[in-house]
Amino acid sequence: MTTKLKSVTGSVVAPQGFRAAGVFCDIKRLGTGKGSDKGPKRDLALIVSDVPAAVAGMFTTNQVCAAPVKVCLDRVRQGWAQAVVVNSGNANACTGPTGLRDARSMTADAARHCGVEESLVLVGSTGRIGVPMPMPNVRRGIAAAARELDNTPASAGAAAEAIMTSDTRSKQIAVEFTLGGRKVRLGGMCKGAGMIQPGMSATGARPAAGWGGLHATMLAFLTCDAAVEPELLQSLLQEAVAASFNRITVDGDMSTNDTVLLLANGLAENPVLRARDRSAARKADQGVLREAIRHVCLELAKMIVRDGEGTTRVVTVRVEGARNPAEADAAARAVANSALVKTSWHGGDPNWGRIIDALGYSAARVVEDRVDIGYSAVGGRRVLYSLKGGRPTKVSFARLCAAAAPAEFELHIQLNQGRGTAVVYASDLTEAYVEFNKGNVSDPASLGG
Amino acid sequence: MTTKLKSVTGSVVAPQGFRAAGVFCDIKRLGTGKGSDKGPKRDLALIVSDVPAAVAGMFTTNQVCAAPVKVCLDRVRQGWAQAVVVNSGNANACTGPTGLRDARSMTADAARHCGVEESLVLVGSTGRIGVPMPMPNVRRGIAAAARELDNTPASAGAAAEAIMTSDTRSKQIAVEFTLGGRKVRLGGMCKGAGMIQPGMSATGARPAAGWGGLHATMLAFLTCDAAVEPELLQSLLQEAVAASFNRITVDGDMSTNDTVLLLANGLAENPVLRARDRSAARKADQGVLREAIRHVCLELAKMIVRDGEGTTRVVTVRVEGARNPAEADAAARAVANSALVKTSWHGGDPNWGRIIDALGYSAARVVEDRVDIGYSAVGGRRVLYSLKGGRPTKVSFARLCAAAAPAEFELHIQLNQGRGTAVVYASDLTEAYVEFNKGNVSDPASLGG
Repeated sequence: MTTKLKSVTGSVVAPQGFRAAGVFCDIKRLGTGKGSDKGPKRDLALIVSDVPAAVAGMFTTNQVCAAPVKVCLDRVRQGWAQAVVVNSGNANACTGPTGLRDARSMTADAARHCGVEESLVLVGSTGRIGVPMPMPNVRRGIAAAARELDNTPASAGAAAEAIMTSDTRSKQIAVEFTLGGRKVRLGGMCKGAGMIQPGMSATGARPAAGWGGLHATMLAFLTCDAAVEPELLQSLLQEAVAASFNRITVDGDMSTNDTVLLLANGLAENPVLRARDRSAARKADQGVLREAIRHVCLELAKMIVRDGEGTTRVVTVRVEGARNPAEADAAARAVANSALVKTSWHGGDPNWGRIIDALGYSAARVVEDRVDIGYSAVGGRRVLYSLKGGRPTKVSFARLCAAAAPAEFELHIQLNQGRGTAVVYASDLTEAYVEFNKGNVSDPASLGG
Repeated sequence: MTTKLKSVTGSVVAPQGFRAAGVFCDIKRLGTGKGSDKGPKRDLALIVSDVPAAVAGMFTTNQVCAAPVKVCLDRVRQGWAQAVVVNSGNANACTGPTGLRDARSMTADAARHCGVEESLVLVGSTGRIGVPMPMPNVRRGIAAAARELDNTPASAGAAAEAIMTSDTRSKQIAVEFTLGGRKVRLGGMCKGAGMIQPGMSATGARPAAGWGGLHATMLAFLTCDAAVEPELLQSLLQEAVAASFNRITVDGDMSTNDTVLLLANGLAENPVLRARDRSAARKADQGVLREAIRHVCLELAKMIVRDGEGTTRVVTVRVEGARNPAEADAAARAVANSALVKTSWHGGDPNWGRIIDALGYSAARVVEDRVDIGYSAVGGRRVLYSLKGGRPTKVSFARLCAAAAPAEFELHIQLNQGRGTAVVYASDLTEAYVEFNKGNVSDPASLGG
């Protein structure tokens, strides 16, 4: 973290004028829900701002797009929002016109209970596909959450728990910094552990051919008290997502529900930041805010990878020297999504054969005797090479195993074909992942998910 | 099988004038090799024709291409061959100029011991990447194999065993048919069980952007006693591979060594078949030969999928109604390679949510409410739909589970966007696959593989 950003508690309620809540309303209709000593896991969250906030959003580019995403795509375009209602346990995807009505109805309920305009309420869902939303439970949940809204770390934690599905732990962060001499805070919470390889865009539309992104369900909600115009906020979020959530891959799948929302309500009363700002002071502020949003998004994205279903390794795959950035990205993703490479990481095996094989079938230009492969610690500068110019180095097997042993390490790939670079954050593939995802033939409701 | 093709024994030695052998020469340099009650697994095979044969070949399009593939690409272009020498246990890939010399040297040895011209000898390898070939052992093996050449089913079986790596069983087939009133035989053997998703081409070069193929190590060697000109043989093989080996996927990876070779030595003395033939009789013969080659390739390809590492399910994924064939292929492969879909198959779970999610992130145009998903028996016409027009059907969960329970079944996907179709043969993803591929940190020699 740079000296400009300070860690603080409270995640989404750390910034001024935000309250949150998370309750259990039995979205999965299991009676008691997935329980623990604390009772069933919460499944409905609310985040509300005291005043309307500038909003930015990024969404799944899966052509099969959940009802809540359709509602958000529509409303985020206006540039302003004031509340977000989110449920877990049901993705409200492939639910037809009824699903769309239900998603809007959730926002209407939240609007009524929280005293905000319906068009300023956004909605998110995650969970099983193709199951109708249990609206009586949902309505009860929204009413209960509205009553419990608070600005304590505990309420933020409850909201963070409520959006979880296969996550083993909630994912929260908040930082504090200065803009125009005013103290500003940015908080965030996210969920995601499987079916992960996000590739979100602002419109949900996929770019033209040649774009390397592939994408799977993660949700992230960021709150901020900075005064920022929607247009600038959107471009800052888009950059940050491109460098973070869109750079992670757990299993190469892409969800119907991916959503990242950022609300900035201006209560910090810093000099408003606009896309057209030319003054040195405001451009400096923009730089600080850009850094803060990127940092928060990247840290949340790494939490998702660390918590991948069955994950035991988080590997930062860095490709350099590709012909161009798109090829660097293709090469990194081919390696990061290769079942054989991922299983070798699980075994702690510094196997370069599978890596160069993955590079060779990627869309990147690869010349066998120009490829270097090596390992380093996270953020480390010293790279230990297993392969140089396509030939194995003299580094001992024991040293290479030691480099591939830690729970987190970096894999450096130099293609020597140009100046394109890319980074992807990946996890290993384990028996636990398969065991977890084998499906449940005893549960008819799992048909969609 | 159509009435024109009759099953016979002997695989690669079933056609006239072919002999084969398979010996153990300790390619992996383990002392005893992977043993069984029958002794260590054979690791060097030879196939020889009494006379020079027309040859056709298809090769990996991985940009990292093994030495033996380089030699074959060079020689197959001439159109004639007379012997093939193949080893398992070492891919002779990423072995630099020495590896290329070694691959040629293998053909020189085989030529000398078998009494054929060196330029008519082809070579194949499979196994670990980046390990130098143990040439003293290889030379001994080639000499021994040459002494044991024979035309019995046992010798064919020995050759089929010698090319295996992670296969649990040898893969062999032979058929007999009639061309121009003459009895003709076509035999084949192959290997492959993991690192499989072939996408071979004649030149090893990948087509321009837009091509959907992706591809992983499989080797296949076909022998035939038909009289066929090389140009026609190549086009028949190319079609057959496109419809078979290039349509399978076990884990989405593509090898540096994929090779399919077909030798046709003319000893059946049928009227020679040429690309330019216009007579009805010769065109009918071409049709029979085309069918035979396609049948043999497809059966061998399915054997590979059935024997996938850890595989418990073989699923034929049929996509219809895509905008064009390339999109149908992209859709089928997205489904067939989705870790989440494959694990659901392992659990016998008829989960359509993961399937439609994979379709949605594929490169194919997918409209949620136009998608139909259903199940049938292999080759069956009756499709049991779980999803119609993007909405779940009323078919009971129990019936759907029964449809997804068999070791082999067909998944039918109708996109209703056009007339593009594609078929992919896929396997499930199991804990056993991960367990098998975790790597072996106690074995330095596994560094490349």
